[in-house]
Amino acid sequence: MLTPAQCERVEIVLVSPRNPLNIGAAARAMANFGFQHLSIVAPFATNWMEAKSAVGAPDLLRDARVYETLAEAVADCTLVLGTGSLDRRRPVQSIFDLPKAGEQIRSILKEPGAPGLASETWAQGKRQPRIALVFGSEKHGLTSDDLSWCHALIVIETCEAQPSMNLGQAVAVCLYEISRTPATPEPPSLEPARQPDSAQLDRLAELIEQTMEAVNYTTRGMRSANGAALRILLRRLMPKEADLRRIMGLFRRILWQLAHSSPPPKDQTVL
Amino acid sequence: MLTPAQCERVEIVLVSPRNPLNIGAAARAMANFGFQHLSIVAPFATNWMEAKSAVGAPDLLRDARVYETLAEAVADCTLVLGTGSLDRRRPVQSIFDLPKAGEQIRSILKEPGAPGLASETWAQGKRQPRIALVFGSEKHGLTSDDLSWCHALIVIETCEAQPSMNLGQAVAVCLYEISRTPATPEPPSLEPARQPDSAQLDRLAELIEQTMEAVNYTTRGMRSANGAALRILLRRLMPKEADLRRIMGLFRRILWQLAHSSPPPKDQTVL
Repeated sequence: MLTPAQCERVEIVLVSPRNPLNIGAAARAMANFGFQHLSIVAPFATNWMEAKSAVGAPDLLRDARVYETLAEAVADCTLVLGTGSLDRRRPVQSIFDLPKAGEQIRSILKEPGAPGLASETWAQGKRQPRIALVFGSEKHGLTSDDLSWCHALIVIETCEAQPSMNLGQAVAVCLYEISRTPATPEPPSLEPARQPDSAQLDRLAELIEQTMEAVNYTTRGMRSANGAALRILLRRLMPKEADLRRIMGLFRRILWQLAHSSPPPKDQTVL
Repeated sequence: MLTPAQCERVEIVLVSPRNPLNIGAAARAMANFGFQHLSIVAPFATNWMEAKSAVGAPDLLRDARVYETLAEAVADCTLVLGTGSLDRRRPVQSIFDLPKAGEQIRSILKEPGAPGLASETWAQGKRQPRIALVFGSEKHGLTSDDLSWCHALIVIETCEAQPSMNLGQAVAVCLYEISRTPATPEPPSLEPARQPDSAQLDRLAELIEQTMEAVNYTTRGMRSANGAALRILLRRLMPKEADLRRIMGLFRRILWQLAHSSPPPKDQTVL
């Protein structure tokens, strides 16, 4: 996740969104990932009012700025990134795929010396240089004219058969990527606590071996090989201490029950 | 992007989705990223019909399978991953953040020798071992019972102030992450060895429950709670298919032996 000060410096710009539900969905994704600043360019007036007044609309939707043109909306942004798919279009701008763009945006936001301002200052119009992410309308995406205000185009790689993403989903995916913590190379750490020690695993192994013997599951001649296999298995499964107690409880109970039953007829084949 | 054969092996499961628009949005995100197989568990009938018959609904929505229980929906999946946020919840399953989970899923899908089958074969019910991504209802997400069928929980890192994502957006973000081309080299993968599917694990659980009952290890009144605990335990341990055969062999043998012994005296305390 980005810090609030980093999120401060990112502005989401929706150009002529049509569907109030999509506007609401975009705002919700922003709230999910901690972004505050929404600008709407040339909205359809009634749809915009409907989105803004929807039950449960986040504050950032009510605080959104409305502009007549994209030029005004991104006027004080130092990096303007359009979003879209590449069907038909061959834009003149640089094209970044979203993972690469996310990497670059995160590293820009990490730069010291350009902290974000508090929301109050932003609301008064005194804004720091910032990054704008621009999303086109549901109908046709960003036009060539819109793109002419963009430094680069971010492309979300999608299927050729269905390249066009829903607006709210595209916003969610972009903000997820920007705010993601890059996966680190090391595998997920195994919880160090509550893992049984080797001796505890050996006690379980012994109990299981006793049970195997009690039900004639293994012959004596095979015991040592089976013992090693059992040790390996138990270590691979990595039961926790609590698991161990439960499993041992079950096997102790099985052994008790077998000891208190009459022996079955000999020389039965194993199922 | 993943290849069609890789996407073939991923199944999206929606548990009791309520809003037809969200179902449609989930299906659209699947189409965007090339995924075909949608399963719906216990849908609200009218909402489901509405989603399915919506104008422009992708074919995969019409081809979706409907199940009464999550157990049936994931029966032939070898890796079942729940999704959710961590507010209030402290699940017993392993927790992966989405970037990490995406990395691991991509590396599993890269394994050779387990190509996906064509859709036609899938539709006939002859399916390859596969990965399920399970999404809970809009209202409360996955329940603890739902999670007991999951090997691990994938968490999308969101803001504390607004942790809960819209269903369609959560699906989009997860599928984007799974199909993204990583910006950095992949770390080594999880072991590819053959994992049992969910139904096989359920059969082992059943056998263990029969044994517990046969040795009076659990009272009838506790059985349903123990069943969930046992499901969770088996999924956490992640036994391989070969392990499963050996463990089931032992429990079958124990049951046989007990059945062929005389009953022990009643009312003995459990060790």
